[in-house]
Amino acid sequence: MGQTVAEKILSRHLVSGDMEPGRPIALRMDQTLTQDATGTMAYLQFEAIGVDRVRTELSVSYVDHNMIQGDYRNPDDHRYLQDVAAKYGILFSPAGNGICHQLHLERFAVPGKTLIGSDSHTPTAGGLTMIAIGAGGLDVALAMAGEPFVTPMPRITLVRLVGTLQPFVSAKDVILEVLRRITVKGGVGRILEYGGPGVEGLSVPDRATITNMGAETGATSSVFPSDEVTRRWLRSQGRESSWVELSADADARYDTVIDIDLSTLEPLVAQPFQPDRVVPVRELAGLPVDQVMFGSCTNSSLRDIESVAHILEGRRIAPTVDAGISPGSRQVILEAARTGAFATLVASGVRLLEVSCGACIGMGFAPPTEGVSLRTINRNFLGRCGHKTGKVYLVSPEVAAASAVTGVLTDPRDLAREEGIEPFSFAQPDAFLVDDSRFVAPADEPETVTIRRGPNIAPLPPIEAMAETVRGEVLLKVGDDITTDHIMPAGAKILPLRSNIPAIARHVFEVVDASFHDRALAKGGGFVVGGANYGQGSSREHAALAPRYLGVRAVLAKSFARIHLANLVNCGILPLLFQDPSDYDAVEAGDALSLNRREVVTAGSFPVRNERSGRDIPCTTPISEEDLAVVLAGGKLNWVRSKKAERL
Amino acid sequence: MGQTVAEKILSRHLVSGDMEPGRPIALRMDQTLTQDATGTMAYLQFEAIGVDRVRTELSVSYVDHNMIQGDYRNPDDHRYLQDVAAKYGILFSPAGNGICHQLHLERFAVPGKTLIGSDSHTPTAGGLTMIAIGAGGLDVALAMAGEPFVTPMPRITLVRLVGTLQPFVSAKDVILEVLRRITVKGGVGRILEYGGPGVEGLSVPDRATITNMGAETGATSSVFPSDEVTRRWLRSQGRESSWVELSADADARYDTVIDIDLSTLEPLVAQPFQPDRVVPVRELAGLPVDQVMFGSCTNSSLRDIESVAHILEGRRIAPTVDAGISPGSRQVILEAARTGAFATLVASGVRLLEVSCGACIGMGFAPPTEGVSLRTINRNFLGRCGHKTGKVYLVSPEVAAASAVTGVLTDPRDLAREEGIEPFSFAQPDAFLVDDSRFVAPADEPETVTIRRGPNIAPLPPIEAMAETVRGEVLLKVGDDITTDHIMPAGAKILPLRSNIPAIARHVFEVVDASFHDRALAKGGGFVVGGANYGQGSSREHAALAPRYLGVRAVLAKSFARIHLANLVNCGILPLLFQDPSDYDAVEAGDALSLNRREVVTAGSFPVRNERSGRDIPCTTPISEEDLAVVLAGGKLNWVRSKKAERL
Repeated sequence: MGQTVAEKILSRHLVSGDMEPGRPIALRMDQTLTQDATGTMAYLQFEAIGVDRVRTELSVSYVDHNMIQGDYRNPDDHRYLQDVAAKYGILFSPAGNGICHQLHLERFAVPGKTLIGSDSHTPTAGGLTMIAIGAGGLDVALAMAGEPFVTPMPRITLVRLVGTLQPFVSAKDVILEVLRRITVKGGVGRILEYGGPGVEGLSVPDRATITNMGAETGATSSVFPSDEVTRRWLRSQGRESSWVELSADADARYDTVIDIDLSTLEPLVAQPFQPDRVVPVRELAGLPVDQVMFGSCTNSSLRDIESVAHILEGRRIAPTVDAGISPGSRQVILEAARTGAFATLVASGVRLLEVSCGACIGMGFAPPTEGVSLRTINRNFLGRCGHKTGKVYLVSPEVAAASAVTGVLTDPRDLAREEGIEPFSFAQPDAFLVDDSRFVAPADEPETVTIRRGPNIAPLPPIEAMAETVRGEVLLKVGDDITTDHIMPAGAKILPLRSNIPAIARHVFEVVDASFHDRALAKGGGFVVGGANYGQGSSREHAALAPRYLGVRAVLAKSFARIHLANLVNCGILPLLFQDPSDYDAVEAGDALSLNRREVVTAGSFPVRNERSGRDIPCTTPISEEDLAVVLAGGKLNWVRSKKAERL
Repeated sequence: MGQTVAEKILSRHLVSGDMEPGRPIALRMDQTLTQDATGTMAYLQFEAIGVDRVRTELSVSYVDHNMIQGDYRNPDDHRYLQDVAAKYGILFSPAGNGICHQLHLERFAVPGKTLIGSDSHTPTAGGLTMIAIGAGGLDVALAMAGEPFVTPMPRITLVRLVGTLQPFVSAKDVILEVLRRITVKGGVGRILEYGGPGVEGLSVPDRATITNMGAETGATSSVFPSDEVTRRWLRSQGRESSWVELSADADARYDTVIDIDLSTLEPLVAQPFQPDRVVPVRELAGLPVDQVMFGSCTNSSLRDIESVAHILEGRRIAPTVDAGISPGSRQVILEAARTGAFATLVASGVRLLEVSCGACIGMGFAPPTEGVSLRTINRNFLGRCGHKTGKVYLVSPEVAAASAVTGVLTDPRDLAREEGIEPFSFAQPDAFLVDDSRFVAPADEPETVTIRRGPNIAPLPPIEAMAETVRGEVLLKVGDDITTDHIMPAGAKILPLRSNIPAIARHVFEVVDASFHDRALAKGGGFVVGGANYGQGSSREHAALAPRYLGVRAVLAKSFARIHLANLVNCGILPLLFQDPSDYDAVEAGDALSLNRREVVTAGSFPVRNERSGRDIPCTTPISEEDLAVVLAGGKLNWVRSKKAERL
């Protein structure tokens, strides 16, 4: 039987398991990436594993998130990351080089290979035909240590593209359309594989925008075939030798198919506070806009900047709008400087933010109180961009640019018609300006490297094995689609604490219930109850590590997002599903729950007792036998250590 | 008798008073400027004064300090500033336009005019032959309301320049040499007027670097003559019609003269934590460097960036160095993009920080713990750049660039010799790229403007008149050269509180004694005892407003810095001098002091009783009769209101 692109790559990297949807498969990981907001924790864990050198083909440590440096904490983290990289054989990309996903696409992504990254938008590299998966830091640390990555075999959905995008409609609108159709839960347990004749009209950065934001559907990954467009991109980056052709067999079978006619798409916008609240821009046209942000890992390629410059050329940002851009990489800036796009943006009034992810996660450039902010980023979760009254709308670069000029949400086709703006066509350079000199290679003599740890870099808190009986209060009950930004907020105040679990734990659930931290400590921990798609969003394992530090022993929900589920397991928190989702109503905040460790099974249900009502609620756990062993051991680090001890 | 340049400008703006050194003179202020870190408070006070439109020739409100926007607070402040500007006739320069002093030099400074600004580096415009004075926000607010600015008539010191700067020595080294010679107290009560044949070899931006950092000597202002160099600068900015010739009369008399032979200067460096701890770079050469920062209001002109690019061309920032640049203005970036200097910096590995003041005051880009940071900024006070373990060295752009390449503090002449770098010569453009379209003009219909106030913009706390008897503990005793960064720290955590006195007051003296806030509140306020040059540094009136909010009624010191002295008066805090400086030793922290309001006089001494020792300490106050009335009234806002009430 023929294979899909995803199946081809997965099967070539399969270490163990059957490629049966939902069954655990263990995959060899060729490459890893980390970024600084999740990386310090990942490398603390890597150090704890005790391997002397990474065992991947390539591991890159990027600094791109916490670049404000409001005090010593972030620069200390960066120094720690640089030292660790030097010592353990990791390529280091310092602050200012660029955003990890853009850089990886430019310099390192290889069609047909696998990549695991401690950032949920790691699937960006699927635009260059990698199976690229976001994961918690510990899973990345284990991959660096040479362990295979275990995940349930995804179902493969074909997104069949036909037609071509019309003027002022772009790749962002494709993925917004996917989100409109399948929602933020629609990709869970799936790989979105793009195919069909519409694919060839999309450049690699276009494809990467789409695979990047596939993360917002909950998909395990997204992938495009590798074709002449791919080859041309690699050639332009001086890497043609990395190219292989890779496409689905004619008789490949997909679990489901989504058909999209690119010709019919129009400019779309995702409204606060979910990326799937998508409507056509024209339906909201005229909404006054306070702020516009260009860039981020979703839309910061040269093509995107050129497209923005095309609209801004000879125009000025409206005086009521604060506009800024985070370009994707040093290469992007240099190319845009060469073409003049950069000068056009500056002249029009766009602020030059750093080459970083920052503004997307509230690390600067927050909107004003109740402000409307149009952004080309991938997430508009409550509070994510600096505070919870800011209203973030996700749009394409074209919508952002047109709206920045008019001061109100604007369909760029309308502005183009009124002002005679020609359709944009992007001429990708035959040869990008390639200069890898700012990447820092690992040390030749690793034993001479001393790792410097700033005072904010705290040791990993130990986690106990699960007790015989787990008893505790429901500390918090939340609804559907709770994101990792609800559980463990980001932003300029909290991100500098990412290498310090006791300190960051003060902010767990702060945006939902500021008393959570104190209550959890006072009660000696307990349970959290959630709805569907609990833990969607980022790969930050802090959303599991910090609750576990506060004593959260189990999360009882209707369903879980993939990465967060794995992070719960890794941190020794038991994920529980209501066997009957309507039992969600049988548990209230403050109820005392209990369960018996010996009754927990991976096949079939087991009781969680509500001591208030005296009722046993039948629950299941969505994890594998091995993952249950990990939870019982008190998380994966304990488990790995005990396995190592057994081997000795 | 002939006049100096300073005397000519002062006499043409004299509203009242005799131009006798030390005697109060009232000056008409033609222009005002504010920036956002001091501006919100200044405009809250302007609103409290109750004038319907500014009465200056030009008032500009710049946003250039608090541009991180970690949450809603700074963007709310910016929105407030924009609304106030629209309503009251002020030109608004939004975030991204540039640093106030650079922009003022480019677009608004006019030889022979006066300028008052709520930023201590307002004297930058003295490079374009203005009498430009830094002051607290309330003094700027009063100037906007049409009131003259009252200050003691300064003594005029001639800094006579001969010779020409040698290769790789630049304007920064001139002012570092001045600081080396006269220290951070040497300019108090003075205007530094530059003259002599060496002047004509210095461009306007060179001159502005020197006048900018004259603030570090404590000088009231610094000024250069207006000559053909001045004319050429104005022509290149499309403003030749603003030019007038202005030079000292041949028989002008100066209080003192400092002779500097530019030909003999070498690259200098100011060591932590004072700008006058100046030694030749060669004496410290080889010091490992963690961080390099280019830019800030001192060295962010096109000339500076070109000079840095000249050294970095074809070279790379050392992998152990984190380097960033804050260019001075949008014009500077566009010019540097045109020449290629911008691309050179990016290619070499320099991070592009925002066009802002931020990093200079710890609003981002802090060094790592115990990190050595070379900066082209003007201040290296304890804690100023993010935290108190960061060690900031002040250097020229040339020293910064050479050291960024080598990774250690480097005399640029050594690098030039080793690598064959030619001396740099700057070709100033005949016509800069001028585009004022991002400045926002005041509203045509001010009555339609509603001022939006974010939740962090707190009302001004009321201040009581001075009681008959002032009694209280010495809450804190500090030594010499205490800066406003000690009293009221800046940085990314605290600057967002600048429009909220109760909130920012929690951080008063935090860097010196974290218990100050609680103690001051518990004790119901009291006294602060300082050494010489108390309050040097910034113009932030928060360093007086916030202590006053905590109940500080008087500061007893050996001497005061000018702007802070005025801010104490404006906020109703009585500045006291030990008549005998050795009595500094007669007062300890915790002592109870008392004084009688009716005994306080401006001529002669009066007793401050130390109730512990039972001794009366003879004190004086360095303020005028009118200023004493202001203090007794509980600050200038009370005083202005009561004067207004009398007039009615």
